[in-house]
Amino acid sequence: MQSFNPPVRTLMGSGPSDVHPRILSAMAKPTIGHLDPIFIAMMDEIKEGLKTIFKTDNKLTMPISAPGSAGMEACFTNLVEPNDKVIICINGVFGMRMKENVTRLGGKAIIVKDNWGEAISTDKLEHALKNNPNANIVAFVHAETSTGAQSDVKTLCKLAHQYDCITIVDAVTSLGGTELYVDEWEIDAIYSGTQKCLSAMPGISLISFGKRAIQKLNTRKTSVNSWFLDLNLIMNYWNGDSKRTYHHTAPVNMLYGLHESLVMILEEGIENSWVRHKKNHELLKNGLEAMNINFLVNKKDRLPQLNSVLIPKGFDDEKIRSILLNDYNLEISAGLGAYTGKIWRIGLMGYSSRKENIVLCLSALKEILRK
Amino acid sequence: MQSFNPPVRTLMGSGPSDVHPRILSAMAKPTIGHLDPIFIAMMDEIKEGLKTIFKTDNKLTMPISAPGSAGMEACFTNLVEPNDKVIICINGVFGMRMKENVTRLGGKAIIVKDNWGEAISTDKLEHALKNNPNANIVAFVHAETSTGAQSDVKTLCKLAHQYDCITIVDAVTSLGGTELYVDEWEIDAIYSGTQKCLSAMPGISLISFGKRAIQKLNTRKTSVNSWFLDLNLIMNYWNGDSKRTYHHTAPVNMLYGLHESLVMILEEGIENSWVRHKKNHELLKNGLEAMNINFLVNKKDRLPQLNSVLIPKGFDDEKIRSILLNDYNLEISAGLGAYTGKIWRIGLMGYSSRKENIVLCLSALKEILRK
Repeated sequence: MQSFNPPVRTLMGSGPSDVHPRILSAMAKPTIGHLDPIFIAMMDEIKEGLKTIFKTDNKLTMPISAPGSAGMEACFTNLVEPNDKVIICINGVFGMRMKENVTRLGGKAIIVKDNWGEAISTDKLEHALKNNPNANIVAFVHAETSTGAQSDVKTLCKLAHQYDCITIVDAVTSLGGTELYVDEWEIDAIYSGTQKCLSAMPGISLISFGKRAIQKLNTRKTSVNSWFLDLNLIMNYWNGDSKRTYHHTAPVNMLYGLHESLVMILEEGIENSWVRHKKNHELLKNGLEAMNINFLVNKKDRLPQLNSVLIPKGFDDEKIRSILLNDYNLEISAGLGAYTGKIWRIGLMGYSSRKENIVLCLSALKEILRK
Repeated sequence: MQSFNPPVRTLMGSGPSDVHPRILSAMAKPTIGHLDPIFIAMMDEIKEGLKTIFKTDNKLTMPISAPGSAGMEACFTNLVEPNDKVIICINGVFGMRMKENVTRLGGKAIIVKDNWGEAISTDKLEHALKNNPNANIVAFVHAETSTGAQSDVKTLCKLAHQYDCITIVDAVTSLGGTELYVDEWEIDAIYSGTQKCLSAMPGISLISFGKRAIQKLNTRKTSVNSWFLDLNLIMNYWNGDSKRTYHHTAPVNMLYGLHESLVMILEEGIENSWVRHKKNHELLKNGLEAMNINFLVNKKDRLPQLNSVLIPKGFDDEKIRSILLNDYNLEISAGLGAYTGKIWRIGLMGYSSRKENIVLCLSALKEILRK
């Protein structure tokens, strides 16, 4: 067993995206203790930075020491109690995972299905809300990583509130890459990740809980199943004032990385980051369309940071992705579920969203598909 | 908000320990995709390395993408079903956390109490096993990080098996620092962390499941509460043969760090690492005793890598630790629970276990306590 030296890839898949060298360097800074006052001051800066990019004043805004799926689980395990009725709008893989979370917790999942590749239908949600007056939670994905479709969070949240439901929103792929306003849109609980549009290393998730979610948490009748993800306990570590209660050992070096990624996105400005993602999406789109490669998702619902395109007829999915990886060091992602072998998912997330990557990707595809 | 530049500390607390520069550099290597064939080959090396240091052939030996407490939870959430009777031997903080895990899962916790700072009593465990013929799991901590006491894992496991119980063992602080033989001692499920005697960054936990544990997992009547920690799903990612099933995005850069820490411990040899920890403990112990500073734990049960010492009378705990941190950049840990303000916990774990650290710590304490 010898030291591992990874190749230098260009990551244009569904995530992780390219990690900026400043963030890689930040992670390599010397580890200090998780109770060191200097570390705790940095934790406070992280919380403030997260509030800025989530566009929220929620006090309970913080990282979870595990990947995006644990962020999802942190929301569900804290908010769903046995027999809670949770309406889940499913239009891709991650909605299905939400359902898994709910049923494992003893909750009742009411499924609203939309076609993969389409936005969530507000009409269907309203229908489900009318038919299920006992439902108390609505959950859905803002930006479906499995298809590249984005949904209208603002309208969906408004609807849910009209029927006295709180909302849980998956923003793993949206945060930093597309408009997102937690307070203005009245999102009650939201989770995201670091490995998409923040250009940071994979391994950390980000959550923010508003008033309604905290009230649900505070009025639970049963204890939270998970000790590790119990926000009542984690809050004492992240929100403790002078004295922090030890909960678990924080992933110190990854938090250095997250901190630096926040510094960078604040330098750029979150709104400018949205604009950059949109602009680069246009560039890629024009190039792909010039090659007669078409998008899965309708123009209106397309995510700029995740481009799902139909694989041109007569070409083998795995073979082409393998050539891209081996000959060009370029990673793009396969389709999932029914779209396996039928679409490619080309990510333009965070630091991956830049002109030189687009030029490389278009040129490589041109060379390969011409053969 | 500006880039964060941590001070350079010497970490001689209860963890994290000093992270070796080779491991810091490994983490800063460029991120590649978690489904990249080159990454998957590295995952296989990690599994092999872990088997070597755990001294096991268990196929189900792998990292969990979250800190030690999630490793604990991975063991309990996969093995404990509602109404399972779990005997937990508690002689410190982490035994108490095991109890929390069991009750949250709907299991029945039967507590065997030992004094903090003492090893677990095999007699008491036998008594509990006799009185609870329906118990099916025994759980305990090998090396209590809260006190620095180690217990006789081999005898405790043998006892548990005589009464048809499977065993869950916490080896967070022991792995790499003191003798541990998963197969020879017939440990059924074990978890550890990276941030103690492996000299790696905090944020990853390590687990190994033997035959009995896998059988318990396979014959569950209920689904595992946690989707994120469900080993049935995680195994498909870590143990898949040609095709890996996507489960969650692995913390790629932290796994680079874990890989390098395994390369280093294999270079040294796990047995040599145990010897180094013992030798350095003797050095520290001699120095402390020369200053009339005494140990909490009996000589026989002392962990070499975590030295709990009584704070000399007349000295203020927080003030002295603060001088050590601010004037010497040296971190040692406070006591927990009833030992708050009464003991210090001085770690000599992994890369922190070296002569220059001991000399610094002893000299600093001498200067401060002389004042």
